[in-house]
Amino acid sequence: MNILLQYVVKSFDRSTKVIDFHYPNELLQEYNWELADQPQNLEEILMHCQTTLKYAIKTGHPRYFNQLSTGLDMVGLAADWLTSTANTNMFTYEIAPVFVLLEYVTLKKMREIIGWPGGSGDGIFSPGGAISNMYAMMIARFKMFPEVKEKGMAAVPRLIAFTSEHSHFSLKKGAAALGIGTDSVILIKCDERGKMIPSDLERRILEAKQKGFVPFLVSATAGTTVYGAFDPLLAVADICKKYKIWMHVDAAWGGGLLMSRKHKWKLSGVERANSVTWNPHKMMGVPLQCSALLVREEGLMQNCNQMHASYLFQQDKHYDLSYDTGDKALQCGRHVDVFKLWLMWRAKGTTGFEAHVDKCLELAEYLYNIIKNREGYEMVFDGKPQHTNVCFWYIPPSLRTLEDNEERMSRLSKVAPVIKARMMEYGTTMVSYQPLGDKVNFFRMVISNPAATHQDIDFLIEEIERLGQDL
Amino acid sequence: MNILLQYVVKSFDRSTKVIDFHYPNELLQEYNWELADQPQNLEEILMHCQTTLKYAIKTGHPRYFNQLSTGLDMVGLAADWLTSTANTNMFTYEIAPVFVLLEYVTLKKMREIIGWPGGSGDGIFSPGGAISNMYAMMIARFKMFPEVKEKGMAAVPRLIAFTSEHSHFSLKKGAAALGIGTDSVILIKCDERGKMIPSDLERRILEAKQKGFVPFLVSATAGTTVYGAFDPLLAVADICKKYKIWMHVDAAWGGGLLMSRKHKWKLSGVERANSVTWNPHKMMGVPLQCSALLVREEGLMQNCNQMHASYLFQQDKHYDLSYDTGDKALQCGRHVDVFKLWLMWRAKGTTGFEAHVDKCLELAEYLYNIIKNREGYEMVFDGKPQHTNVCFWYIPPSLRTLEDNEERMSRLSKVAPVIKARMMEYGTTMVSYQPLGDKVNFFRMVISNPAATHQDIDFLIEEIERLGQDL
Repeated sequence: MNILLQYVVKSFDRSTKVIDFHYPNELLQEYNWELADQPQNLEEILMHCQTTLKYAIKTGHPRYFNQLSTGLDMVGLAADWLTSTANTNMFTYEIAPVFVLLEYVTLKKMREIIGWPGGSGDGIFSPGGAISNMYAMMIARFKMFPEVKEKGMAAVPRLIAFTSEHSHFSLKKGAAALGIGTDSVILIKCDERGKMIPSDLERRILEAKQKGFVPFLVSATAGTTVYGAFDPLLAVADICKKYKIWMHVDAAWGGGLLMSRKHKWKLSGVERANSVTWNPHKMMGVPLQCSALLVREEGLMQNCNQMHASYLFQQDKHYDLSYDTGDKALQCGRHVDVFKLWLMWRAKGTTGFEAHVDKCLELAEYLYNIIKNREGYEMVFDGKPQHTNVCFWYIPPSLRTLEDNEERMSRLSKVAPVIKARMMEYGTTMVSYQPLGDKVNFFRMVISNPAATHQDIDFLIEEIERLGQDL
Repeated sequence: MNILLQYVVKSFDRSTKVIDFHYPNELLQEYNWELADQPQNLEEILMHCQTTLKYAIKTGHPRYFNQLSTGLDMVGLAADWLTSTANTNMFTYEIAPVFVLLEYVTLKKMREIIGWPGGSGDGIFSPGGAISNMYAMMIARFKMFPEVKEKGMAAVPRLIAFTSEHSHFSLKKGAAALGIGTDSVILIKCDERGKMIPSDLERRILEAKQKGFVPFLVSATAGTTVYGAFDPLLAVADICKKYKIWMHVDAAWGGGLLMSRKHKWKLSGVERANSVTWNPHKMMGVPLQCSALLVREEGLMQNCNQMHASYLFQQDKHYDLSYDTGDKALQCGRHVDVFKLWLMWRAKGTTGFEAHVDKCLELAEYLYNIIKNREGYEMVFDGKPQHTNVCFWYIPPSLRTLEDNEERMSRLSKVAPVIKARMMEYGTTMVSYQPLGDKVNFFRMVISNPAATHQDIDFLIEEIERLGQDL
């Protein structure tokens, strides 16, 4: 307990490093991690815990901006400890009565917030957004061609899914897994802000139909991974309605904005979706993992996935079997992911999540306002950030006078990786970078930890300049 | 902390109830579980924790025999708390350096134990055995027809998977998800002990080939869910070799026996498998979830699943990228499941797991020896249990003199559900039951918690008789 609490205190302390970086081979050699025949004593075990945490990334540190999931909520942490202590499985009410009910209550509340009448529908907490998106694809396919469950893809025409070129790679992973194939995922063009262009979507749908293929799913993104863009959901919904295609909204990252009266308009139209992925472990700061798939039509998930395992879902139990939700899952055993969200919700209230979201978005705007006209910065796209993603290049002094040609691009592409490597060596902060399309490596700043402050944003800017000015 | 530790202490105390059972509607009404706009204070939050645990099943209680995953290991629990505190994600070395290395070390050790030369190969911790089995199916398909990734199932011939009629339902779930279809999973006959009959396997493979189908996977089970049977892996391996079919071993439940010098012979031939599912959260008592998929050929998983997301797996990072293992996963974010296994292994040593396994199997044999000739019991199959599964009917006095006809079967089928319901009402113990094939509801006793003793087994028998004698 002391070891863990000390780590938490350190994580919150800006004077500690975010990371004590070691190269993989160094780290492998620096300590004996091997597994042996003989037991070790308590002192040794405690030392392993200390060593593990010494080299861990402090994801709760207010200057850790590296991923969409950051921060460490103490109620969420306590809830996760309780979950571990209860050590049970979500498949039946029999062995997880409270957690099954809390899942029911929480998913219903999330569906209400999405805007489905009376919170009706279905859903599940799954092991991450990629699996939630895969569920959506499976269910959409099953809705259109229920025979696929028994007969496989051989029995159905060629199915085509549509998603934007900025969407998450899990759509393609899902298509590969489900036997649909990545070639059957059509990437729709985005505008300069990273939003799907509805006219291109319609054009590609018609093109697919002309080839005799069957469009079965459009996955719009509410909060893209890199730009934080929101696809125009109302326009997408109209197209899906027109062509009778399942509309999925991947709001893994952007779903949190539904908690904010100020920002939820960005997801207008989500209420028309057939399914929604929403990861509270991202923008809402719930400990990993906590991802929900929500489905408007009740019963579909069950029909799509059920196998009636009689050793688990006995039909002659003495309680209402509708609470044995395991057979609608792709998993058999399923980790309890709901309790941390539920307890945080109780502790913060919807208004607390709203304040959390509003604060993070305000911080992103603060960053944007600082750098948009600052010397040495170039924005990747114009305009205020819609989510907390702020995408920019830092241009070191030596590149500022260069013409905008290939050589400059080539040199610029090397700037972010070097600054990032130096950040990790110093351990002062962490922020992500990547190329995208024809744009060379740029920083993607994201903020989901409400412990961050204006000073932390200022620090990030100073640190980028300190570490990058000689490049 | 006090709330959690009190719960742990209670869980270990035989005088407390395993469960304080309430019907779903009662439980929904007994407490206000709803989510509201306004925050609640610390006192209320602590009360929710207490209430949640009050109604939870004490899965660590020595008289909880309901599932394959039971018990509560204190080192495992501490490790899970540390994992929650570190709150990170397995996809890159960048944000999970130690955990990525520990996964590497642990999977290698598991492969050594399986018997692959030098522990070579690949693997991943996945969210449960069903997903591990699905991975195996995906990888087997990809190995034979790599074009399936891009082109989908439309581009490949009809694929057939084979598994025994006693195998886990996740094989069919996986086939449904992957677009193979459940009709393409052929269930091979088992002998009276629940072991796959190799001659039937070969017959069905030939039959499929004659129809022009392509056998691509045999999933043998090492430790079936209900009987605890071990398929004859050597014979299955010979057949797979002969017909060039991927051999998967679902050792989710039986894998733990590999830790025991006394019992590992039951998995002889596992070293010839192409892939193995092994869930340390079952027989090895690691907290939920901890399931590994191990693959003999390195690189296949990566090729099968990678999508090269440039925002995560930047190719210009400053460290050895082979440690960024996220792209071989179906998931994007992946929970850290390895640390609890690794720390328990350090604390117990391989010999500690061996003692754990040996003790549980000894307890099962003790139970078998008590009931095999006891009045009022009938074994579902003859012979000593191979795993800890002991399957039996309790015959209440009123049924003992009845002829073995349909009426008796019908009455017998109602016995286990009533006894189970009474167990839950009293909260004294929990054990599972199910029908299987033509066998009506019988008890399936399993033991994976080394805290159980002979007295607990005696108690179970007495309790069954106390609760069932009037039926």
